Amino acid sequence: MTSPLTIDKNWGIETIVSELRVLRDQALANRHRQDRPPKMPSRKALQSIMEGLSAVLFPNRLGSGELSDDGVDYFVGHSLDVALRALYEQLRRECRFHAEQQALFDIDCGHQAAAITRQFAAQLPAIRALLDSDLVAAYEGDPAATGLDEVLVCYPGLTAIIYHRIAHALHRLGASLVARMIAQIAHSLTGIDIHPGAVIGARFFIDHGTGVVIGETAVIGEHVRLYQAVTLGAKRFPKVADGSLLKGNARHPIVEDDVVIYAGATLLGRITIGKGSSIGGNVWLTHSVAPGSTVTQSQVNNEPPTYKPPLNGLSAQLQ
Amino acid sequence: MTSPLTIDKNWGIETIVSELRVLRDQALANRHRQDRPPKMPSRKALQSIMEGLSAVLFPNRLGSGELSDDGVDYFVGHSLDVALRALYEQLRRECRFHAEQQALFDIDCGHQAAAITRQFAAQLPAIRALLDSDLVAAYEGDPAATGLDEVLVCYPGLTAIIYHRIAHALHRLGASLVARMIAQIAHSLTGIDIHPGAVIGARFFIDHGTGVVIGETAVIGEHVRLYQAVTLGAKRFPKVADGSLLKGNARHPIVEDDVVIYAGATLLGRITIGKGSSIGGNVWLTHSVAPGSTVTQSQVNNEPPTYKPPLNGLSAQLQ
Amino acid sequence: MTSPLTIDKNWGIETIVSELRVLRDQALANRHRQDRPPKMPSRKALQSIMEGLSAVLFPNRLGSGELSDDGVDYFVGHSLDVALRALYEQLRRECRFHAEQQALFDIDCGHQAAAITRQFAAQLPAIRALLDSDLVAAYEGDPAATGLDEVLVCYPGLTAIIYHRIAHALHRLGASLVARMIAQIAHSLTGIDIHPGAVIGARFFIDHGTGVVIGETAVIGEHVRLYQAVTLGAKRFPKVADGSLLKGNARHPIVEDDVVIYAGATLLGRITIGKGSSIGGNVWLTHSVAPGSTVTQSQVNNEPPTYKPPLNGLSAQLQ
Amino acid sequence: MTSPLTIDKNWGIETIVSELRVLRDQALANRHRQDRPPKMPSRKALQSIMEGLSAVLFPNRLGSGELSDDGVDYFVGHSLDVALRALYEQLRRECRFHAEQQALFDIDCGHQAAAITRQFAAQLPAIRALLDSDLVAAYEGDPAATGLDEVLVCYPGLTAIIYHRIAHALHRLGASLVARMIAQIAHSLTGIDIHPGAVIGARFFIDHGTGVVIGETAVIGEHVRLYQAVTLGAKRFPKVADGSLLKGNARHPIVEDDVVIYAGATLLGRITIGKGSSIGGNVWLTHSVAPGSTVTQSQVNNEPPTYKPPLNGLSAQLQ
Amino acid sequence: MTSPLTIDKNWGIETIVSELRVLRDQALANRHRQDRPPKMPSRKALQSIMEGLSAVLFPNRLGSGELSDDGVDYFVGHSLDVALRALYEQLRRECRFHAEQQALFDIDCGHQAAAITRQFAAQLPAIRALLDSDLVAAYEGDPAATGLDEVLVCYPGLTAIIYHRIAHALHRLGASLVARMIAQIAHSLTGIDIHPGAVIGARFFIDHGTGVVIGETAVIGEHVRLYQAVTLGAKRFPKVADGSLLKGNARHPIVEDDVVIYAGATLLGRITIGKGSSIGGNVWLTHSVAPGSTVTQSQVNNEPPTYKPPLNGLSAQLQ
Amino acid sequence: MTSPLTIDKNWGIETIVSELRVLRDQALANRHRQDRPPKMPSRKALQSIMEGLSAVLFPNRLGSGELSDDGVDYFVGHSLDVALRALYEQLRRECRFHAEQQALFDIDCGHQAAAITRQFAAQLPAIRALLDSDLVAAYEGDPAATGLDEVLVCYPGLTAIIYHRIAHALHRLGASLVARMIAQIAHSLTGIDIHPGAVIGARFFIDHGTGVVIGETAVIGEHVRLYQAVTLGAKRFPKVADGSLLKGNARHPIVEDDVVIYAGATLLGRITIGKGSSIGGNVWLTHSVAPGSTVTQSQVNNEPPTYKPPLNGLSAQLQ
Repeated sequence: MTSPLTIDKNWGIETIVSELRVLRDQALANRHRQDRPPKMPSRKALQSIMEGLSAVLFPNRLGSGELSDDGVDYFVGHSLDVALRALYEQLRRECRFHAEQQALFDIDCGHQAAAITRQFAAQLPAIRALLDSDLVAAYEGDPAATGLDEVLVCYPGLTAIIYHRIAHALHRLGASLVARMIAQIAHSLTGIDIHPGAVIGARFFIDHGTGVVIGETAVIGEHVRLYQAVTLGAKRFPKVADGSLLKGNARHPIVEDDVVIYAGATLLGRITIGKGSSIGGNVWLTHSVAPGSTVTQSQVNNEPPTYKPPLNGLSAQLQ
Repeated sequence: MTSPLTIDKNWGIETIVSELRVLRDQALANRHRQDRPPKMPSRKALQSIMEGLSAVLFPNRLGSGELSDDGVDYFVGHSLDVALRALYEQLRRECRFHAEQQALFDIDCGHQAAAITRQFAAQLPAIRALLDSDLVAAYEGDPAATGLDEVLVCYPGLTAIIYHRIAHALHRLGASLVARMIAQIAHSLTGIDIHPGAVIGARFFIDHGTGVVIGETAVIGEHVRLYQAVTLGAKRFPKVADGSLLKGNARHPIVEDDVVIYAGATLLGRITIGKGSSIGGNVWLTHSVAPGSTVTQSQVNNEPPTYKPPLNGLSAQLQ
Repeated sequence: MTSPLTIDKNWGIETIVSELRVLRDQALANRHRQDRPPKMPSRKALQSIMEGLSAVLFPNRLGSGELSDDGVDYFVGHSLDVALRALYEQLRRECRFHAEQQALFDIDCGHQAAAITRQFAAQLPAIRALLDSDLVAAYEGDPAATGLDEVLVCYPGLTAIIYHRIAHALHRLGASLVARMIAQIAHSLTGIDIHPGAVIGARFFIDHGTGVVIGETAVIGEHVRLYQAVTLGAKRFPKVADGSLLKGNARHPIVEDDVVIYAGATLLGRITIGKGSSIGGNVWLTHSVAPGSTVTQSQVNNEPPTYKPPLNGLSAQLQ
Repeated sequence: MTSPLTIDKNWGIETIVSELRVLRDQALANRHRQDRPPKMPSRKALQSIMEGLSAVLFPNRLGSGELSDDGVDYFVGHSLDVALRALYEQLRRECRFHAEQQALFDIDCGHQAAAITRQFAAQLPAIRALLDSDLVAAYEGDPAATGLDEVLVCYPGLTAIIYHRIAHALHRLGASLVARMIAQIAHSLTGIDIHPGAVIGARFFIDHGTGVVIGETAVIGEHVRLYQAVTLGAKRFPKVADGSLLKGNARHPIVEDDVVIYAGATLLGRITIGKGSSIGGNVWLTHSVAPGSTVTQSQVNNEPPTYKPPLNGLSAQLQ
Repeated sequence: MTSPLTIDKNWGIETIVSELRVLRDQALANRHRQDRPPKMPSRKALQSIMEGLSAVLFPNRLGSGELSDDGVDYFVGHSLDVALRALYEQLRRECRFHAEQQALFDIDCGHQAAAITRQFAAQLPAIRALLDSDLVAAYEGDPAATGLDEVLVCYPGLTAIIYHRIAHALHRLGASLVARMIAQIAHSLTGIDIHPGAVIGARFFIDHGTGVVIGETAVIGEHVRLYQAVTLGAKRFPKVADGSLLKGNARHPIVEDDVVIYAGATLLGRITIGKGSSIGGNVWLTHSVAPGSTVTQSQVNNEPPTYKPPLNGLSAQLQ
Repeated sequence: MTSPLTIDKNWGIETIVSELRVLRDQALANRHRQDRPPKMPSRKALQSIMEGLSAVLFPNRLGSGELSDDGVDYFVGHSLDVALRALYEQLRRECRFHAEQQALFDIDCGHQAAAITRQFAAQLPAIRALLDSDLVAAYEGDPAATGLDEVLVCYPGLTAIIYHRIAHALHRLGASLVARMIAQIAHSLTGIDIHPGAVIGARFFIDHGTGVVIGETAVIGEHVRLYQAVTLGAKRFPKVADGSLLKGNARHPIVEDDVVIYAGATLLGRITIGKGSSIGGNVWLTHSVAPGSTVTQSQVNNEPPTYKPPLNGLSAQLQ
């Protein structure tokens, strides 16, 4: 065995650092920027803001398990104060990021961020009320659920909708980047990817959830239920004159009230799923369906059951 | 640019705090509770308990990489002591949560939690033995696997089954809420969602795993292999007299020994997949199949290959 | 209520510890090892190495948001120094792990790890250049993307490709275990599971991404775009003489330049998708297709739209 | 160089562990205890309680520098809630510690700890008022002090008196062990060792402070000023019949109002320093002095100055 | 034992919070301030700045023990960048604190803090050179010291002089509050209390150090050595017309080159200790002494040794 | 107010970095070293080793407050394993530091560090036994002490002696640098500075302790009690031929059994304090005293008490 002292542990850092600097300068030049890129909102800061806002909305369940009766409001007030001050700073960063990108140097990002923070804060009680309706929907929609509290602390679908309702409020107030980053934090936690632009009504429930994708211009009514791997996506991406993608047009489904969409269904384009419809698992749908429709994958369901299993050892383990 | 000193950073906290209090009181009233909700188990505590138990089961791989020969048992014993004391506290919380919800004030949750902790602890060697069989199954089932150790530290399917076998043991002992929370921690880490009620035999392996859903009453035999996005779900949810969902009935598939289910297959309802069957990718199945069956998506596989590709530049990058 | 002092909190640790020791010894014996298993690379260390390398590659976006102009290179150089020294240690562990498993006691793992570290480090600028091309591809491929910076901080597909390009470079240099562990960290963060062996060309983009699986021997050309839940998998696993799986043979698809594969498509086996092809959502494909092909799920797309929805209240919420 | 693999890193842990267990059992037996020693308050918990209470008393200076106007009261209320709940737990531990030591098994430590917590909490405003008087005394007593805020954040004497006033309040309520532990935290931070039993009037100031010792039964009037290394100690320790020390008798000085005691002075025994006296540096004093006395070390002060220094280079550096 | 559920854990937070608010408002009113007090520099931030600057000055000893040859400068540069940006922020806070206190609203604290930061940074190499001379002095002055490295990592006197030289540089640049806070951090770590205003020449060494106090206007020449508990203090505090203390006048000793002052000596007032003098332990000195003087406590040294001890068992333990 | 954007925040890092590099190179050159200095033991690592060893010695009081009966030995064994492995690494560093300084390249530091670790570990039970005697001495020596447990968790003198007994054992085994660093950690925590070379017998107690200094060659018998600010120091430092200090000679006091030394006493030189002597506060002593001596500061004690204080208001606050 050779002595560790003779191992050359110089990795050529100086060369790599200067090569990377050249690449960074080129990347900036490609975007017609000479100076350093403006600061962006911080994902870490937003994670802790979202934990704070979740605690504000559900202090006993998502906040501290240790709250005394006369301490709850202080906890809520202080968590809110901390979260809003931190959110203000992230919103100010987003504002300056956009302003510098667009060379709009006279925008007063301090006042603008404060205004958004204030308007957002005022919506928190309404958001809590919506989330209470989602909680009930989850409990009523899943036979495995044993209570509202279990839903709140266990169901990734609940986490996803809490984050979405907050992200959507910020998106509406113009903070699209902060909203998007919040949505991606939820995506990483739950496997559920909801664009903050999506409009979602009360009593919404996603069960299991992994792989769900809901696009930017999707509109979902009240009392809608989705299962894992459902996609509400775009069918095609029209291009504008210069060959680049047309951005922002309505291109995702409208789902009316009381619709259920089962696992793996893919709904693409600006179609409308009529009120009360039921879309079967794995269905591929690119056209609208009338209210009350039931859409299923035809080729499998009409096959007769061909095997009646005996009661074997495995079943005996069930009680 | 305006001075930052003039920005009004009062967000109206007081109003929001009192509006949220009203909503919380309403939510409690809706559930016929006047007082503060009972404490629930803590997700953070359970995360660290699960890290501790994983280290107890596989000290050299999932514990500390630094163990000396005469230190291993002390590490295992101490990690176990810490984990079990913490688990005891969470089980006591679950007990009191149920007790207060049901107004059963004379339940001795201390003794009950201690009893569950002790019975659970005694099962840990058996759980380790099952996991050893799962490890071998994973290694034998994946041509990309180079050894058991790689499987243990790299495969999300292994993480999922470690968490499930622990959660299932707790579920059987009556700690359904703690078990459910453990299952959701695994879901967030791996994208694999196994209800702690599911009964799963030895030598079980899930490859890739993202999007797998296994329902509460599913029963899986020995030596079963699943791929990503497989669903073992319920077909329909019967309601009881008052219109609410019937809870707890057997509604998920029974999968017998030696079955393989490929990616994206959806199996719904209390059907039985006979021993040794193979269920193809993306198959949608709502009826039982006999032992030794092979089920595939018919419409694609019978198409002839139409294109014989030349050896192009990309292929050359492979060696 | 009974006094907590009377609760027996002895869990039988001693018995469990000795039973687990017996099981560990058996497991080692089964693998024909008498001594303690060699140390493996640490997942936690690799997580922090990956955060460091991400910061080195994109210091302003994935590093510190607080860098001053004359501080950037010091930040990059120092982060690189820390990350490479830590990586060296993990590579040395992998080397010794393999050496001890194969009883190759005269391998000089110090020098070998240093050599791999040095060669890997020298590739970082090339990796950054590839990632710059991926960034542009993502921006051009998603109508919801508002800028390169948003893509970099928000898109899980970007995280996945950053991790993959690093893991692939290490895989090529022989560090297959470290590479695999890095891939699984990315899998847990994004739901995207790319084997480090996969060869992926420039301008690669995965949108949404949850559930994507790309196998070990897959080859992907330039300017390819994938959506969520796409599988590039193996069709079957040939066995060798002793019944175990043949490992390492080319068994995953080749995807040529300019191909788009929509959500949920499953491509299995060593097939080739010709340049410029478009594979529709949920398609199941086990044969090669010629350049310029368009493959879709036939049974759904030819159905006429049957429902022209009125402009209802939900749509009005859109502006 | 020998291979590191051949180094024997077994330290004989098992032997040491069992030898230590024998010693622990002996130590318990010596104190006539058979079972495990009762739990004690935790120093770490008390440290964080003291940081919390300091923040409650001076939220803008010792709490968060980031408080907004409408957030201060929520911060104070929440910090108070957290600190008091944690203090309650430590007081409960002290109570049970005493109870088990004295085999008083019917003491209701929960209620007793809650009562002490409540009474202590009610004294916090009075403590703040006293501390305000101390702050002014420090500012007026030190020509180097530039403002009250500087005194609050810079002067170890202020830290010491904050901790003492809290510890003393708890000591009076019977929590002598918790009080003592708080005093020792202050001692470690500041080098100032005040027994929590000492009675100290308003407008108290210790400058520099390292080495100050104030004994258990010392009584200090209003507007007293001490410098570093002053001792208010006991002269001798009377013994009781069995030869052990008499505990708890009045054995430390009484210092009346408006006294100044300069650095290094040692005052021993139950003597009284009359109102308005001045005790010189390094003085050794074991008898009472009348009001208005000036006590100095005689042998030095009456020597004439013998050297009139020129203005040298060093002095020139002063402006 | 009573049920813990019946314990009243409401501490009356609301009352305490409002009483404390009244006291805070009164305290502000007493200082003729109506609004919230301006933010102050943060002790925690300064602690981490000082750790950073120590690492910058001695990267191999006080920075990271893991530096590679080609990584040192990147470490130094990055640590410097982080420390200076953080220092800038604290200096800006001090500037605004003073400005708001004095109602000087047109001070541009951003530019002022940047100017101080820049001037301070430029002095760091000179500070390192001074500290190198201190290191040598410590090694040469203590027979127990075995090398410069040991001095650097073990001697509290070195820590104290590192902190002082930095604090003094900031004090000279006008940042008296930040400087004072740094001095108090050192005081808490070492028991050595040096006012940042004190002027101290090269090759300075304090051995042991606990209890040393050096006042604001002290001037110390080159190659001076102090032992523990030495005071260089003020003799009396003259008052100005309104009865308050005169602040800032020269009131502490001047100690010329090559002086040694032994443990416990107290030197008070604007006296001068001539070059090369030696001041004995516990000496109390309030007048100047000529160069080359030796001052000792007379009453003890002239007593003859009265006891010649035999070589007993204790001495035998020494070899 | 000027825009913050115009503030120049470039501090000239590059210049400072290169100036500091020049100074580091000069410092190395002055010590006749061309290469980078060898690594030293880490203070942070030693802090956590000392916390671990304290927990091993007193698991219920200085370890975890949460130990169950059947968990204690696992806690002790695991803490010991972790601490000893970490200590081994620090001892290996010290060995290589000395070896590289003395160019002794063939020292096998791995084996040497392992040997020291093993011998040190074997002494831990004996150290615990000594500390048990110290605990009793503290309890018996302080009328304010209410029990052994209070002494253990509250008294800085106990912390100092725990650290010293460990440091002394390591010092005897040749690890003088690690020992010295441990002593300085204790000094910073307690204000008590004991050189690890000092030999201290059983039943040792230091009360209050701030400012105590005990030199390298001091020898202290059994049952000795010291108070704050006692110095056991060297009188003069003889020089060797080249003018440098003679290192390592016996130059500190020998204190025989049953001696008490009161606060502030200074004992200098290789004198012997005879068995059973009592040295008064602030005494300055440079000659030996016979067994049974009582030494006091004469000039104060023979003054008559001149003032008999009335019982004033302050005294009334005492009960």
